[in-house]
Order: sequence, then C-alpha cells, then structure tokens
Amino acid sequence: MKKKWLVMVLAMFTLMAYPVSAFAAEGPTSPELLIGLDTTFTFLAFILVFFMQAGFAMLEAGSVRMKNAGHVAGKTVLTLAIASLCFWAVGFGIGFGNDGGNGFFGTTGFLFGGDSTGSSFESLAFSDVTLNVKFLFQMAFAAVSLAIVSGGMAERAKLSVYIIFGILFSVLIYPVVAHWVWGGGWLAELGMQDYAGSTVVHLTGATAAVVATILLKPRLGKFNKEGKPVIIPGHNQVFTVLGVIILWVGWFGFNPGSALSPMGGLFGHVALTTNIAAAAGGLAALIASWLYFGKSDIPAMLNGVLAALVAITGACAFVEPWAAIIIGLVAGAFTFMTSQWLERAGLDDPIYAFSVHGIAGMWGALSTGLFAAPRLVEAVGVGKAGLFYGGGLHQLGVQALGVAGTFAFVAVLSFIILYVMKMAIGIRVTEEEELMGLDISEHGTYGYPEQMKLIAESESKTLKH
Amino acid sequence: MKKKWLVMVLAMFTLMAYPVSAFAAEGPTSPELLIGLDTTFTFLAFILVFFMQAGFAMLEAGSVRMKNAGHVAGKTVLTLAIASLCFWAVGFGIGFGNDGGNGFFGTTGFLFGGDSTGSSFESLAFSDVTLNVKFLFQMAFAAVSLAIVSGGMAERAKLSVYIIFGILFSVLIYPVVAHWVWGGGWLAELGMQDYAGSTVVHLTGATAAVVATILLKPRLGKFNKEGKPVIIPGHNQVFTVLGVIILWVGWFGFNPGSALSPMGGLFGHVALTTNIAAAAGGLAALIASWLYFGKSDIPAMLNGVLAALVAITGACAFVEPWAAIIIGLVAGAFTFMTSQWLERAGLDDPIYAFSVHGIAGMWGALSTGLFAAPRLVEAVGVGKAGLFYGGGLHQLGVQALGVAGTFAFVAVLSFIILYVMKMAIGIRVTEEEELMGLDISEHGTYGYPEQMKLIAESESKTLKH
Amino acid sequence: MKKKWLVMVLAMFTLMAYPVSAFAAEGPTSPELLIGLDTTFTFLAFILVFFMQAGFAMLEAGSVRMKNAGHVAGKTVLTLAIASLCFWAVGFGIGFGNDGGNGFFGTTGFLFGGDSTGSSFESLAFSDVTLNVKFLFQMAFAAVSLAIVSGGMAERAKLSVYIIFGILFSVLIYPVVAHWVWGGGWLAELGMQDYAGSTVVHLTGATAAVVATILLKPRLGKFNKEGKPVIIPGHNQVFTVLGVIILWVGWFGFNPGSALSPMGGLFGHVALTTNIAAAAGGLAALIASWLYFGKSDIPAMLNGVLAALVAITGACAFVEPWAAIIIGLVAGAFTFMTSQWLERAGLDDPIYAFSVHGIAGMWGALSTGLFAAPRLVEAVGVGKAGLFYGGGLHQLGVQALGVAGTFAFVAVLSFIILYVMKMAIGIRVTEEEELMGLDISEHGTYGYPEQMKLIAESESKTLKH
Repeated sequence: MKKKWLVMVLAMFTLMAYPVSAFAAEGPTSPELLIGLDTTFTFLAFILVFFMQAGFAMLEAGSVRMKNAGHVAGKTVLTLAIASLCFWAVGFGIGFGNDGGNGFFGTTGFLFGGDSTGSSFESLAFSDVTLNVKFLFQMAFAAVSLAIVSGGMAERAKLSVYIIFGILFSVLIYPVVAHWVWGGGWLAELGMQDYAGSTVVHLTGATAAVVATILLKPRLGKFNKEGKPVIIPGHNQVFTVLGVIILWVGWFGFNPGSALSPMGGLFGHVALTTNIAAAAGGLAALIASWLYFGKSDIPAMLNGVLAALVAITGACAFVEPWAAIIIGLVAGAFTFMTSQWLERAGLDDPIYAFSVHGIAGMWGALSTGLFAAPRLVEAVGVGKAGLFYGGGLHQLGVQALGVAGTFAFVAVLSFIILYVMKMAIGIRVTEEEELMGLDISEHGTYGYPEQMKLIAESESKTLKH
Repeated sequence: MKKKWLVMVLAMFTLMAYPVSAFAAEGPTSPELLIGLDTTFTFLAFILVFFMQAGFAMLEAGSVRMKNAGHVAGKTVLTLAIASLCFWAVGFGIGFGNDGGNGFFGTTGFLFGGDSTGSSFESLAFSDVTLNVKFLFQMAFAAVSLAIVSGGMAERAKLSVYIIFGILFSVLIYPVVAHWVWGGGWLAELGMQDYAGSTVVHLTGATAAVVATILLKPRLGKFNKEGKPVIIPGHNQVFTVLGVIILWVGWFGFNPGSALSPMGGLFGHVALTTNIAAAAGGLAALIASWLYFGKSDIPAMLNGVLAALVAITGACAFVEPWAAIIIGLVAGAFTFMTSQWLERAGLDDPIYAFSVHGIAGMWGALSTGLFAAPRLVEAVGVGKAGLFYGGGLHQLGVQALGVAGTFAFVAVLSFIILYVMKMAIGIRVTEEEELMGLDISEHGTYGYPEQMKLIAESESKTLKH
Repeated sequence: MKKKWLVMVLAMFTLMAYPVSAFAAEGPTSPELLIGLDTTFTFLAFILVFFMQAGFAMLEAGSVRMKNAGHVAGKTVLTLAIASLCFWAVGFGIGFGNDGGNGFFGTTGFLFGGDSTGSSFESLAFSDVTLNVKFLFQMAFAAVSLAIVSGGMAERAKLSVYIIFGILFSVLIYPVVAHWVWGGGWLAELGMQDYAGSTVVHLTGATAAVVATILLKPRLGKFNKEGKPVIIPGHNQVFTVLGVIILWVGWFGFNPGSALSPMGGLFGHVALTTNIAAAAGGLAALIASWLYFGKSDIPAMLNGVLAALVAITGACAFVEPWAAIIIGLVAGAFTFMTSQWLERAGLDDPIYAFSVHGIAGMWGALSTGLFAAPRLVEAVGVGKAGLFYGGGLHQLGVQALGVAGTFAFVAVLSFIILYVMKMAIGIRVTEEEELMGLDISEHGTYGYPEQMKLIAESESKTLKH
C-alpha cells in the first residue's frame, strides 16, 4: 500500500512538472494556472513595451529644438493610436495570420476579434498565452517600429505625411517583415535568429526612417556653406536621459518578454544579457566620445546604451553574458562613429535613428551568427550555433540574408510610398513654417508658449542690433 | 489497474482546473498558488494605477502656467498622501465594509488592519486576492478620483482648501459612491454595470471638480471684456504628452486589473477594448479639432485619448472591440465639442476635468446600456444585455439612474462643503497672489526659479515701454 | 473505495499547499510553477527598483541649477552602467558569494555566469527564484545605493571622480555591507533586522555621500560672508515631483519585492506599511515646513516622503500599520529639521542625501528595535521583538551596532578613497568651471542650450548695468 502512495505522489509531481523543462519556450497543452501565469507574464511585458512610447516621446522631444517639441512629443501619441487601430484591423493578420504556404504574408485573422480566432494564428499556437494578450504584445512591437520612423522625420515632415506613411507602415511594411521572421515566413523557414527583433523591429523602422531622411533632405541650417555639419543640439537633455532610462526599462519587456512565459527561466538569462550589453554600450560610446571630442558627451552615451540594446535584441537569448558585453561594446562605439560619418557624408538624421536602430540592428542580427552558443540555440530551438562555436558560416549567412532582404524590401517600399507622396502633395513643410517651428505651423500653438515668447524677444533684439 | 490510473489522472486535472472557468471573475475556494498568482496580478494592477498619479502630475503641471507648475505638481503628491491615510482610516470601511443592509455606506473595517479583518469586507470576499492588496488597489482608485478634483481647482484655489476638501472627499464622498456600486449598495442591487469606474471614479471626481470650478469662478484674464474666452495655454506640452502616455499605461492596471485575476482571460479582452477605444478617441478628437480650428490640436488629441479611456472604463468588460471603437470615437469627438461649448458658456475648467472625466464618464456609463453583449454580461455576471442586443431599455435605465444619483449626491455634498468653506475662510487666493502665481504665494518659492526670473525681466520691460 | 479517493484528494491538497504557509518567506523545494510565479514576482520587483533610477534622475536634475542639469541627469545612466558591470563582475560575489566563515565578504561567484552557479551563492539558496533574476534584483539595489552617492557630489565633483569612486563603491563598499546583513555575514549572525535596506542600501549610500560632501566643500555662493546658508533652489520642481512619485512607485518593488515571493501574502503587508509611512512622512514634513517657514514647502514635503520611505525600508515587514505611521511621521519631521540644522552647521548637501537617506536610514534601522511585533518577527524569521513589545533592549542594541558598524566602515573607506583622489588628481572642478556649469565644462554642451542662451543674455545685461 505504501508503495502505491509513493507511485502516486511521484506521478503527481511528474504531471505538475510536465509543462515545463529547463529553458523551454513551448510545451504540451498546459493547465489553466500555467495559462494564467504565462499570460500575466506576457501582459507585464506588453505594458513595458507599450511604456517605451513614453521613452520615445521624451528622447525625441528632448533631442529637437523648443519650437518643435510639442509636435514631436505629440506624434508619439499618434503613433500609438495609428498602430493600435491599424495593427488590429489588418497588420496582425498579415504578420501572424496563416499564409497558406506563401511565406510572405498572412491572409487570415483581420479585424482581430479576440480569443475565439486562435485558428487564424497558427504561428502563435506554440504559446498558451491568451490570444488577446499575444495581440497586444505584438501590437506594442509594431508601435515601437513606427516610433523609430518618426525620428527620421523630425523637425521638417508634414504631420499628414507621417499619418499616411504610419498607416501604410502599420498595415503593410512592418507586418510583412514580422511575418517573414516570426509569422512562419521564409526567413523563419531558413532558421533566422531574431529573438526580439533587431531586424524585425529596429532595422525595419530605421530603414524607413533613413529613406524619409534622404527624401526630406537636411534641416535648414544643418550644413553650412562649406557643406560641413553644424551641431543643432536638442533642447532638453534631462528629457533625453529620462527617455533612455524608460526605454532601458521597457526593454526588459521587449527582450525577456519575448519568451512569453517565465517557465524554465530562459527569460532571466535574456534579462541579464540585455542589461549587461546596455551598460557596456553606454560606456563604450562615452569613452569613444571622450577620445574623439576630448569631452565626454552625454547624448553619445545615451545613444550608446540604445544602440547596444538594439543590437542585443536579436541575440539576447542565444549568447552568453561575455558575448553580450562584446556585442554591446561594439554597438556603442560603432554607432558613435557611424553617426559622425553619416553626418559628415551629408545625412541629417536628427535623432540618429539610422545609426542607433539601423546599423546597430544589422550588427545585432549578424552577431548571433558569430556568438550563438549551442546550449542556448538548443534551448530556444531556432537556427544553429555561431561561427565562434564552430558552427561555420551557415548561420552568419542566414542572418546576412535576413538583413539584406529586410533592408531591401523596406527601403524600396518606403521609397515608393514617400516618393509618390512627395510628388503628389509634398512631404516637407515650407521654409517659413520650418523656421517658425512645427508646433505653431502644424498645430497653431507652441509647445512652450511662455518660453518661446522669451526666445522671440531675444531673437527680435538680435535682429535689431 | 490501468483504468484506475486514468481515473486518478482525470480527477487531478479536474481538480487543478476547478477554480477557473472561461471569463470567471470568481470561483470556489482556491489553492495557495492561485492566491499567489491572483495577488501578484492585482499588485501589478495596483502599481499601474498608483503610477497614474505621475501622469496626473505631468498632465496638470504641463497644462498650467509656469508660475503655478510646482504647486500643481506638488498637489499630486499631497493627493497620494491624503488618499493613503484617509482611505486607510475611514474610506475603505465606508466603501467596502459591510453595511448591514442599509445599502448606502459600510460601517465595518475602519483603521484597516490587514489580512485578519476579512469578515469586515464581505463585498470583496468574491476574490481570493489577499486583503492588503485589495485595499491598496481600491486606495489607488480613490486617489485617482481625488486627482481629478485637483484639476478643477488649478491656478486659483488655496492649498488649505484642497487639503480640507480632499480629506472629506476621501473619507466620505468617494467611498459612499464606491459602496453604492462596488460595495454591495443599492446600485449594485439594481445591477449597475461599471466595470472599473466610469461613474464611481471619474464622474465622481469630475462632479466635485465642476462644483469647485463654478464656486471658484474663472481665472483672471480667462474671459475678455466681451465675455469671450481667452486661450490660456499650458506651459509644457511635452509634460502633457508624457502625462497622457503614463495615464494610458496606468489604465492597463485600472481596467484589466479590475478582474482581480488573470484566470479565464477576461482581463485580456478588457485590455484590448481599453486600448482600441483610446486610440479611436485620440484620432476622433484630432480630426474634430482639425475641422474646427483648421489645425490639428495636440491638447485636443490628448484629451480625446483620456476621454475615450474614461468612457471605456465602465464598459470595457461588457462590450466587443467594434463597440469599443464607437465608444472611443464618440467620447473623443464629443469631449472636444463640449469642452468648447462649456468654455463659451463661461466655465473655466483649466484641465477640462469635467469634459474629460464627467461628460465622457456619463457617456461611458450609458454606453453599456446600448452595447453590453450577452456573452460578456454573462461572463462578468452583472446586469443585463444592452439595447442593441435586444436587451431593451432596462439596462440603459439602470445606468441613467446610476449617473443621475451619483451626480446629484456628489454635486450637493461638494457644494455644501465648498460653500461653507467659501463663507468661512474663502476658497480662492487673492487677486495679487493669483497674478504672482501660486508657487510663490502658497509655497514661497517658484517651481522654476531661473526661468521665472527671465519672465519677470521680460514683463518689467514690457511695462516700462 | 470511496474513502481512498477522499484520502487521495486530501493528500493532493496537502501537497499543493505544502510550499506555502502564512507569511512564509521560504519553503521546501517547490514545483516548477511556484518557481515561475516567484521569479515573475521578483522580476516585476527588479523592474520597479531599476526604474527608480528614472526617479533619481528627475529628482536630482530638478534639484540643481539649469547649468548642471544635463550632467546630473546623465550621471544616473552612468550609475546604471557602472553598477551593472561592476556588480556582475565582482560585487555580487563579494556581497552574496560564500565567505567560508569569514563573515565579512564572499569569495565565490565572480563574473556571474547565470543559473549554473547556484552553489556559489548559499546565502540566496532559501529562495527558489532563478539565480539570474536574483542577481538582477540585487544589482538594482546596488545601483540605488550608488545613485544616493551621486547626490552628494552634485554641481561640483569631476565626472572622472564619480566614475572611479562609483566603481570602487560597486565592487567593494556596497557589497561588503550587503554581505554583513544579507549575505550571511556577522550582522546576519547577530540577527540584524533590515528587511529591504534602510542600513544596507540607504545608510551606506548616504554615508559615502556625506564624506564626499565634506571633502568637496560647499558650492560657490552657498554660504554668504557671514557664513549663513543661502538658498540655491533647484531649477524644476515638476521634475522633482515626478522623481518622487517614480521613487514611491519603485519602492513597491524595493520593499514588497524583498519577499522574493508572493506566497503567504507577507508582501502585501509590506506594501501597506510602506505606503502609509510615505504618506505620513510627506504630511509631517509639509506641516513642519509650514510651522517653520510660515509657508508649506514643496521640496520639504517631497523629502519627507522619501525620508519616510527610507525609514520604513528596514522595518516594513516587522511592524504594524500604526507603527509605520509613527515611523513615517518621525522620519518626515526629523529629516526636515536635520536638513536645516546640517545646513546651518556648514554642510552643503545639494540633494539632502544625508538627511533623507542617512539620518532617516538610521532612524529606520533603530525603529525595528522599538516596534518589531512578535507575530511579524516570527513570520520573517529574523531577530527578536522590539522594546515596545517587551522585547527589551536586545534588538535595539543589535540595530545600533549595525548602524554604527556600517557608518564607520563606509565613512572610513570612502574617506580614504576620496582623500587619495583629492591629493592625486583633485576631486572638484575649477572655480571657473563651476560657475560656467558642469554641462558645458565637463561635457562641452549645455543640457538646455536654448534656455542657457537666454540666461547668458540676462546675466550679461545685469553685468553691464
């Protein structure tokens, strides 16, 4: 009789334990309590990613001049509104709906109706999180990608252009790339490793941003008569610092949250690599600026943190902490240098969207091809080990293909959309409006009415003399 | 022998599953792990709702002039302090204590002592969340309602008046309304649907705010000699944007958190309707302002988001996503129009507290009478289906009664309290103090000393000429 | 046969319940789901504590002048970077590694490698949270302690000095004290009660800050020719308010999160005492300032909230709500008075780091010796009941010893480090650089370029006249 009890107890333990195994991101059908826990975990992650928009608002507003700050900050709320509605109506279906084998875009699950439509999203069936929360989590990612685009348009694009482009980006551009890598598309088939979206989210947003930057041309006064870049400093570094800390915090939803479950503990590893890479990136950029300018530059440090976060986003689950430090150091230093080079080459990217999200995004995507550790690749179950673990060039090739494919697709489509708009309605405000600032020209009121009055008085005095 | 095992396994599954069912907000006594999960979920929600005060601080401070910004922001911390202490000592007992059948206010559980006093709060016994966390969650709601009141008093009420009124609001006004709807009172008996407080939290706060607004009279300079309203723009739109994003994020605790459990997944549905309504409200108000002013107005868009969030607060669990979009669109557009009408009618409500929280709160309360879907009403277990689902006018009538009762009770009591104070000690600062700004007159230092010095220099120059 | 079933069902319930008991902070080896829940809970707490750095950035930046705001805010990101890397490489091993019985510092677990190194951290084995998340939680605490130090250096220390001191603080000073109390060291052996770090985190940071303050000497212009203190107000009270609300929110990770588990519900009690103490502290300081200055002072209220939070940090799990109110009231009032006294005694502590974190930290540590309630002491399992519960002077003596030991160790070591640096490279910027502001002198650009231009114009005009 005693033996029987023992067997039963052991059986129960086995059963209680069966939905989880070390670093398992998926498992067999699980009991209700596990669903509740996984959904709570993913909901927390969603909230953190959604909150990143506050980070973008502060980062972008702080990085522009006072006359454009209300406009730039306000656009972030618009980003949320556009992404929320467009991704609900169309984007989620294209990104994560079933593609019937076409490998490029989903064709099911439009006008997302909640939990009853699970069969429309086979690519998400691996997780037991309730579908509403899966949707919200993915929607917040789409909004982050769109927020990156808004950076490239800062201080000179018409609001209407951002709205139209934002809609097309949310229903088409972002979802298609997401489908390729995360929705069961052709890059997923090839085994591309992009844990939380160095490529899908950051490179996609940054590529659209750089196309906009090029088509919009530099801001008035950005280059002097000799064609040399003039520094146009942001108006509020405290805002940019706050923005970066919020983004850093939000990234703990972005990366660890992509596990969609706390079971097995993989997410803790992801949080560790994410954090340590960010720290290394900030220090690398600070030191790079110290060597380059002779002064430690705070915006450089902030961009170094962000670039490292972007780079580790794809690699976070695949690499060991020491590799995360290297990835972060390289991202921080390299982003600083490229932002200087691109500026001297004539590119005026006010928030450095392409350096921070694009170049660091590419580096992040390629880095897993170098550093992906066998034990972690096995735990995640995507792709192969990297070059430095004897994995050869295979994974590096897949990653490079993913980067090239994404860049080409987003660049071409963004160019077509923006070029058509440029021809049809114009994408840039008039010179007069730009000088006045977009707060007053696009919205009719200053973001800082009392302070702008003082600035106007000061400028009128300067003119008189 | 094999059969027996099968039976046992099935039995275990049944038992593990018994505390949860689809969309169940309550269940039989549950095991410890479920308590742990539900309490963690509710604690997360509490933190989000508590954090909304940072949103109010930024929204309100950004919406006023520089000379009052420190005062207005500082009042938010005072709001937290008052609500924390008063709701602990008295409010929680009145709101959620047992009322012995009187239906109007609880009479047990004062000086809340923690988990040992569960029998004093029968109205909360449906949930297995530990009582301390239930208390904190409800306390944070009371603080939100009080924060709305502070908006109506901005830029001219004495600090002492806010403190005294805030204490009475936290121990009496808010808790009584909360008892009616959520504490087992007469509106609960009638089956009023107010999932997270369009009426209880928002209409209550907004009604007190509008009474204060009327008794305080408009700010100096708000209306010109012809009685036409003069725009007094807020000093910092970046702050208001940050405030609105924080509030939007906080609402994911407010509405989904009101499920008090992640089990069954209803909370994910609530998060979806909440988010999509907010997006629709922001766009509706942006477009309304574009049509009305000829310019897209950022504060209008921000208020549209908030109004939609207020409106969906009561309806979020009862309506489908498409209905949430309609509720949001109407709230956004209607709040914009009413804020213009009320201003032209002579009301000076600096943060638009009544339009955003009051009118949208009423619309939200009524909207469930129209849109409440049978499947969701059944899941929540409160009230009946709405008019558009063939539910007739019954639920609409209950909702209207709840709105009218709440408005009348709060308006009368607030009027009495403020009128007595007005007669006894005066509720408004002197004209000189108002011109000087409340930072210096109430607190002795400016919130922005360096910038106010520049403004003073500019003003003295203007006077000389 | 029926009886057997009953037995089995009961057995299962017993087993499901066994890992938890009322207020249990630890338990026998638990199933995977419990690990998942505890780790999720602790991860949420980590995120809140990490987010406190945004609070410090806003609080400290708002409390200094515009010319130093970018520098001060930017240092917070540097704090995160330094703490993340140093605590990963060395600090975690010294703080929580095994000490082989030496009682002073750990000697295992350097270059933290993740979950596989559990045997290096016996002091953390009581909890089932995955080791990566335990590390992140402790790392965030180290970063908070370092952020306090940065306050004492505000507006005059060289950036390089902060970096060097920050590294030594993160690898040595903080970890050693953490080891004493939480890592199984000599104070842990004595039964010191410091639930979340009034002593370990706050007193440690504040002691280093006050040593830096003394060695750096007062800011230029802080004392007039008669030696009387001159008020140098912070430039942005909205920032300080936002900072304090974020810190208050973050404290819900700091204190309740220290339970490392939601099971048993102790964390809800901790959240309640934490919140009510903060509220009482804010009101006490507001009233104290009203009596003292004749005006309610907003920075005083904000510091009162923080001081109360600091004080309750050590006591939160050991005391009843009524005692928490007393602890908060005393902390708020006493911090206000001591900040005035210290200033008149010639100490220039720009962010009041020593009053808020040091004196309130000491009071908090001693307060458990007075108020620790037997039922809660038993639940936590550390130390003995306090004096007011008939526990005699024993616990008070242990607490006093802990405070004295921590203060002496940190003060001596900080003095040596900073004194050596002072002699070797100098710790303070030049007079000219200080007048110019650290934004431009240390980093080459202003944090607020447009506003500083107006201030410069105003100052040049004043000089002309």
